[in-house]
Amino acid sequence: MRIAIAGAGAMGSRIGLMLHETGNEVILIDRWPEHIEAIRKNGLIGEFDDRKIVAQLPIYSPEEIIEEHETVDLIVALTKSMQLEQMFHDIQPIIGSKTFVFCLLNGLGHEETLAKFVPKENIIFGTTTWTAGLAGPGHAKLVGSGSIEMENLAPSGKAFTLEVLEVFQNARLNPIYSQNVRYSIWKKACINGTLNGLCTILDCNIAEFGSLTVAREMIEAIVAEFAAVADAEQIHLDHSEMIDAIEATYDPQTQGLHFPSMYQDLIRNQRKTEIDYINGAVWRKGQLAGINTPYCAFLTQLIHGKEELLKAK
Amino acid sequence: MRIAIAGAGAMGSRIGLMLHETGNEVILIDRWPEHIEAIRKNGLIGEFDDRKIVAQLPIYSPEEIIEEHETVDLIVALTKSMQLEQMFHDIQPIIGSKTFVFCLLNGLGHEETLAKFVPKENIIFGTTTWTAGLAGPGHAKLVGSGSIEMENLAPSGKAFTLEVLEVFQNARLNPIYSQNVRYSIWKKACINGTLNGLCTILDCNIAEFGSLTVAREMIEAIVAEFAAVADAEQIHLDHSEMIDAIEATYDPQTQGLHFPSMYQDLIRNQRKTEIDYINGAVWRKGQLAGINTPYCAFLTQLIHGKEELLKAK
Repeated sequence: MRIAIAGAGAMGSRIGLMLHETGNEVILIDRWPEHIEAIRKNGLIGEFDDRKIVAQLPIYSPEEIIEEHETVDLIVALTKSMQLEQMFHDIQPIIGSKTFVFCLLNGLGHEETLAKFVPKENIIFGTTTWTAGLAGPGHAKLVGSGSIEMENLAPSGKAFTLEVLEVFQNARLNPIYSQNVRYSIWKKACINGTLNGLCTILDCNIAEFGSLTVAREMIEAIVAEFAAVADAEQIHLDHSEMIDAIEATYDPQTQGLHFPSMYQDLIRNQRKTEIDYINGAVWRKGQLAGINTPYCAFLTQLIHGKEELLKAK
Repeated sequence: MRIAIAGAGAMGSRIGLMLHETGNEVILIDRWPEHIEAIRKNGLIGEFDDRKIVAQLPIYSPEEIIEEHETVDLIVALTKSMQLEQMFHDIQPIIGSKTFVFCLLNGLGHEETLAKFVPKENIIFGTTTWTAGLAGPGHAKLVGSGSIEMENLAPSGKAFTLEVLEVFQNARLNPIYSQNVRYSIWKKACINGTLNGLCTILDCNIAEFGSLTVAREMIEAIVAEFAAVADAEQIHLDHSEMIDAIEATYDPQTQGLHFPSMYQDLIRNQRKTEIDYINGAVWRKGQLAGINTPYCAFLTQLIHGKEELLKAK
């Protein structure tokens, strides 16, 4: 299969490498100049648990795509949330009438963005539990295992989605055909919508947050808002299942001592957060549906305030 | 007039000294052992703009009051909000049937607390623009000028309130008989209810807060909640007057470069805040009146969370 990875950071590098190793034609697309330069010079280095590989994968900035390429069969979308729209605007030359997009971004609202560039029939959504890190430009650290859920948005997309599933299966990416990927996306967003913003604004790790007397009240208020807005999209989040999933992360033996990704982005690295695609998306969707989401609104405003104070980029 | 100052910190020391200088019998009541010891040993030192005085004022811990004193004419309440109830519980021996209480605490909900110990007819409420600081135990720094608004809660209290006004006038405390002291208290609480909590949780000064793109949206949401709950108490806060008063504080030439008192309490000194008597009081009052106050609720929870994280005492 001819596959473009739109957003070839850590996770994009993992998926690109594993698909390339199993015989697919993989093209990387990214905007980071040092990353592009390193991969062109040395290839993309992947340090897995059990092996280190170097793959000579073509990499392009989105602006270069226009001169370079014919259409692809599949685009795996793995940009930062706020870069998705510009990316798809720029890579239109490789999107043909048969090209599918497999969106693996975290957060909400990406369906609406992708629908501007690709018919709904050609869109697959998914979530993943794989992890990935970068040791530097062109150098991915790929420990542990994971799986990938995927499901076509429109019934007509199922045949090709099953082809993608087989390709991912061959690449040992452990794909699962989901019966309700929108539910999985909402659930993940709901967990992120509590821990990410709250740990960031309170400046604490997950276990510290979980130990607070006020933790339960705050997550219940936020979960209730996610559930109300999800309901309007015919996604039924079970309140106590969400609370349990959130509270399961407090254990210091598992994830508790971690700082959520938003904390790392903003507090550690002064980077802009994805809050507009988590709590901010629930707030926007709520406004359209006539549902009040004051906790999501206030948390979004506080995080944006903190971004400005820290001059996040 | 025989006057007890219940809570003889910086502001209590100012008012106690100025009332003592002009011939009143002043008793100080406070819980801080070093302060009590210093005043008993060296007297209470007051460094005004134009003079330094040392006054041999009697000072007691609330527990000592029971053995020491006959009733007083007036108790000026100047404790921290969370200490008010215990203070009045302890000093009941000096409260006679004719004793008035003049409450100068910031924040909301003190009327209900005082009503447990004193009939409404004997309660005066007020606000002040005087400032005061402590250089150390028993040593007050008293720069600048100010004024004090006061009003009896019940009509029958007016005659004695005018006597208090005269005593404060003689002491050059610049008292003003207020036509609506509850309005002044709500207005002050509303300004504190935005700047205190938001600067504390965002870790910034007033001017930095005011510069944020999201500042206006957040203060509007909080002001709307204060106004809705105040309405239920027949206090009508004008929305745009509140916004103007808040935004006037952003100017770096005036208050902008200051950190609000809550920031100093919690972030600088790891002390518990008065949030329960500002946003928390609006939340509680709103629940009783069937009014939603999610911004006040969330801000109260965040500040309590931060208190726990910083092990505030």
